[in-house]
Amino acid sequence: MAKPTPLSGFPELLPAQRVIEQQVLDILRHTFELHGFAGIETRSVEPLDALLRKGDTSKEVYLLRRLQEESPDGHAGLGLHFDLTVPFARYVLENSGHLQFPFRRYQLQRAWRGERPQEGRYREFTQADIDIVGPGELAFHHDVEVMRVMVEALAALPIPPVSFQFNNRKLIQGFYRGLGIEDVTGAIRVIDKLDKLPAEEVTRQLVEDVGATPEQAAQCLELATIRVSDTSFVERVRGLGVDDELLDTGLSELAAVIDGCADATTDRVSVEANLRIARGLDYYTGTVVEIYMAGYERLKSVGGGGRYDALADDGRTTYPGVGVSFGVSRTLLPLIADGVLDGSRPVPSVVLVAVNDEDARADSTAVAARLRARDIPCEVAPSPQKFGKQIRFAERRGIPYVWFLPSSEGHGHEVKDIRSGEQTPADADTWAPPVEDLHPHIVTTEEKQ
Amino acid sequence: MAKPTPLSGFPELLPAQRVIEQQVLDILRHTFELHGFAGIETRSVEPLDALLRKGDTSKEVYLLRRLQEESPDGHAGLGLHFDLTVPFARYVLENSGHLQFPFRRYQLQRAWRGERPQEGRYREFTQADIDIVGPGELAFHHDVEVMRVMVEALAALPIPPVSFQFNNRKLIQGFYRGLGIEDVTGAIRVIDKLDKLPAEEVTRQLVEDVGATPEQAAQCLELATIRVSDTSFVERVRGLGVDDELLDTGLSELAAVIDGCADATTDRVSVEANLRIARGLDYYTGTVVEIYMAGYERLKSVGGGGRYDALADDGRTTYPGVGVSFGVSRTLLPLIADGVLDGSRPVPSVVLVAVNDEDARADSTAVAARLRARDIPCEVAPSPQKFGKQIRFAERRGIPYVWFLPSSEGHGHEVKDIRSGEQTPADADTWAPPVEDLHPHIVTTEEKQ
Repeated sequence: MAKPTPLSGFPELLPAQRVIEQQVLDILRHTFELHGFAGIETRSVEPLDALLRKGDTSKEVYLLRRLQEESPDGHAGLGLHFDLTVPFARYVLENSGHLQFPFRRYQLQRAWRGERPQEGRYREFTQADIDIVGPGELAFHHDVEVMRVMVEALAALPIPPVSFQFNNRKLIQGFYRGLGIEDVTGAIRVIDKLDKLPAEEVTRQLVEDVGATPEQAAQCLELATIRVSDTSFVERVRGLGVDDELLDTGLSELAAVIDGCADATTDRVSVEANLRIARGLDYYTGTVVEIYMAGYERLKSVGGGGRYDALADDGRTTYPGVGVSFGVSRTLLPLIADGVLDGSRPVPSVVLVAVNDEDARADSTAVAARLRARDIPCEVAPSPQKFGKQIRFAERRGIPYVWFLPSSEGHGHEVKDIRSGEQTPADADTWAPPVEDLHPHIVTTEEKQ
Repeated sequence: MAKPTPLSGFPELLPAQRVIEQQVLDILRHTFELHGFAGIETRSVEPLDALLRKGDTSKEVYLLRRLQEESPDGHAGLGLHFDLTVPFARYVLENSGHLQFPFRRYQLQRAWRGERPQEGRYREFTQADIDIVGPGELAFHHDVEVMRVMVEALAALPIPPVSFQFNNRKLIQGFYRGLGIEDVTGAIRVIDKLDKLPAEEVTRQLVEDVGATPEQAAQCLELATIRVSDTSFVERVRGLGVDDELLDTGLSELAAVIDGCADATTDRVSVEANLRIARGLDYYTGTVVEIYMAGYERLKSVGGGGRYDALADDGRTTYPGVGVSFGVSRTLLPLIADGVLDGSRPVPSVVLVAVNDEDARADSTAVAARLRARDIPCEVAPSPQKFGKQIRFAERRGIPYVWFLPSSEGHGHEVKDIRSGEQTPADADTWAPPVEDLHPHIVTTEEKQ
C-alpha cells in the first residue's frame, strides 16, 4: 500500500485536534442534558423516498448499494441522511407510542452530503441538533426555551463570538399581507437576495416579478433593514404603519424570544432581531434563526433553525416542533485549520511512568495502576531507555510529568514536571497533578500568545 | 407520510435504551483514557480497493454513489468501512509524520456490513477498538498491556460475565511444525472446525486433506482440548513431547498474557488459555483472543483481536500492532432486547419544576436556572395544569422530583419525591437530589427483582 492521501470533503482530525471536537461535544451534551434534553442517535440511512421529499437537496444524497447486489437500484433504495431533522421526524413517527411528549431530544451525529467540498462544507460532517416536538400543538414558550438552550450551549464553547439573528415568519408574512402584497412567498424569496443583490435590483424584482407597487417595495426594504439587539424593533415596525393580526403575533413572538434570551447572552454570544432573516422557503412557520460567528462570516451561518408547524405527520397526527442546529464540523474545522483552536496535548496521559529496566516493568505498571485507581491517566514508558530519552519521549507526546521509581542511586519515588524541571518525592497513592494538567484541553490563540 | 416501520439490520434505541449505550461508551472511554489511549475517529468511507483487500468480506461492503452522478461506478469507488481496523491502518500510514509511536488509540465508532441481519449481527453497528502500533518493531509487552486494558474496561461494564479466551499463533504453528505437519495453515483451518464437527471428522480431515499421520492428528486434537485459567497449559503442552523454537516463544508469550491479566480479573471477567482458538486465518501472527459472554454463547464472540506483525505497510515501513475490539451493538442490543439491561429513566431531568400559572412561567424558569447552575438537570413543566397532572407528567417521564414554587396557599419553595410522596421545604441554591438520582443510569435485571 502506498502512502494514502486524504479524501477531499471527508476531513479527519489528528489526536490533539480530536481533543477539541470531543470537548466541544462534551460541553454541548452537558448543557443539553442540564435542560432535560434526552440524547438519541438515529441510524445513518433512510429510505430514499424520505430523503427526497425535500426536493432541493436530492442531488446531494449518497445512495447505498451492496457490492454483490444484483440490481444496482434494488436494495430498498437506501441513502445516507443529509441532516438530523429528517431522521428525527421519522423516529418520532415510528416511536410515537413509546415517547413522552413534548419530546425533547438532542442529537450529536454525522451526516453526509455529496456537494462540492469547500471551507466549512464537507461531504461528511457532525451536527448538534436540539428539538422539542409535540403532537397536535406545541406551546410557543418552547420556542424561547430551545433558543435559549442553544445560546447557553454556545456561550460555554471556546469559539469566537457568535450572534443569534432572529426573525419570525409570521411577522414577515403578516407585514407583506398587511401591505397588500398578494405573492407573499415571492416577496420573501426576493428579499432573501438582499445579501447578494443591490437594493435597487431587489426593488426592481419586487415590482416587476412580484407585482408590488414601488411604495410597497420600499416598505419591504425598510422592514428588512431593521436590525436591533433589543425589542425596539416592535416600535419601528409599528412606525411603518402596517396593520395585520399575523404581524402582531409575529412581533410579540419575536419580542418574547429576544427578551427570553437576553440574560443568557455574554460577551461571546449576542442576540439580535434581524428582520431580513428568512431562512429559506421550506417548512418554517414562526421563529427563525441564523447563527453567525465573528470573523467567519464567509462560512455564512454556523447554525440555524426555527419553528415548524408540521415537522412530522403520520396521516392521523401532526407534530409541530421547534429546533436549532449547530454545525460542529463547519465551525471547528476552519478554526482548527486557522490555528485558533488547538488541543493541549495529543494523549490523555498526564504522567509517563519511567521504567528502570525491562525486568522491573511490573513495578512501573504497579505505580501506574495506583495512579489510575485515583483517576489519573498515565502510561508506562515503552522501553527502559536512559532517563533522558524517556523524558524526551514524554516531551514529544506532550506528557507533562515523568514518574521515577526507586533506583540504585538511592532515591525513592519521585515525579518530575518536565516543563519546569522540578523533581520532588511523591507517593503514588496520594500525589496528584494540578487539576488543569489532568486532562488535555482546548487551547485558544489568545492563551497561546 | 404513513407510520414508518423499522429497517431490518439498522437498529435504533429508545431514549431510555440509549442511556445504556451512552453509559457503556462513557465507561469504555474513561478506562481507555486512563491508560493513555487517545480517542480518534476516522471518516466513515474508504476507497473501495482498500476495503476489498481483505477478500472474504468484499460482498458485505456498502458502496456509495451520489444520486445525480453520471456513471454509477465513477465517484472514486467509495464504500462504508466494515470495521475500524482497515481505516485505522490507513490513518496511521497517512498521518505517520504527525503521530508519536508507539501510537495508542481507541475508537468508538459505527461500521457497516451488508450481511443478513440476525441477533447480534447488524448492518450498522458500533464497535470499541483499542490498538497499539509502532513502526518497525513493537515490543511484546504491549500484547499484555492492550489485553489487560480491555479486561479492565469490560470488568467495569454492567453486563453478564465475559471470558477472554487467549491463544497464540506461534504456539499453534510451532507445535504443528514441531510435529512434522507440513501444511500448517491447512491444519489450523481444520482444527478451527472443532466447534462444528465431531472430533472423528476433524481427525479424518487432518489425515486425508492435510496429510497428517493418525498420530499427528491425535496430537493436534490433544493440543486443542487444553483449556485452563492459569499457566499450567505450559506443562501440559510440554507433556505432549513436541519440541520447537517457535512453540517455546508462543508458550512464553501466552503465559505472559495470562499472568499479566490475572490480577485484573473479577467475578465478571475471567481469562483462560484455550488452545483451540485460532481466530480465522487472516493477519494475526502471535497473541489471539476471542471474548465470550456467559449465557450468550449463541452470539459467538462479542469481541476479539490479537497481534499482527503487519497492520500497515507503506512500502518503506511496516507497522506491527496489537489490538482488541469489543462489539458494543452486538453485546448490548441482545441484552436490551432480553430485558437484562434497561435505563433508569428516558430523560436526563431529575427535577420537574412545576408552573403555578402561565404568567408566572419565568419564576419557574428562574428556579430551574438556579438548579442548573449547580449541575442539576431539570426541566420546567410544559403547561400550568393542576399539580396532580403536573406530578403525573413527571411520573410518565420517570422524573423523580417535582419542585413547587410559593403559591397562594402560603407555603414557600418545596420539593416532592414523587416515589415516596414526601414533600419538604427546599432552597434552589442549596438543595440537591441524592447522587444516585442525579443522572439516569443502567438498571440490570438483578436490581429490578
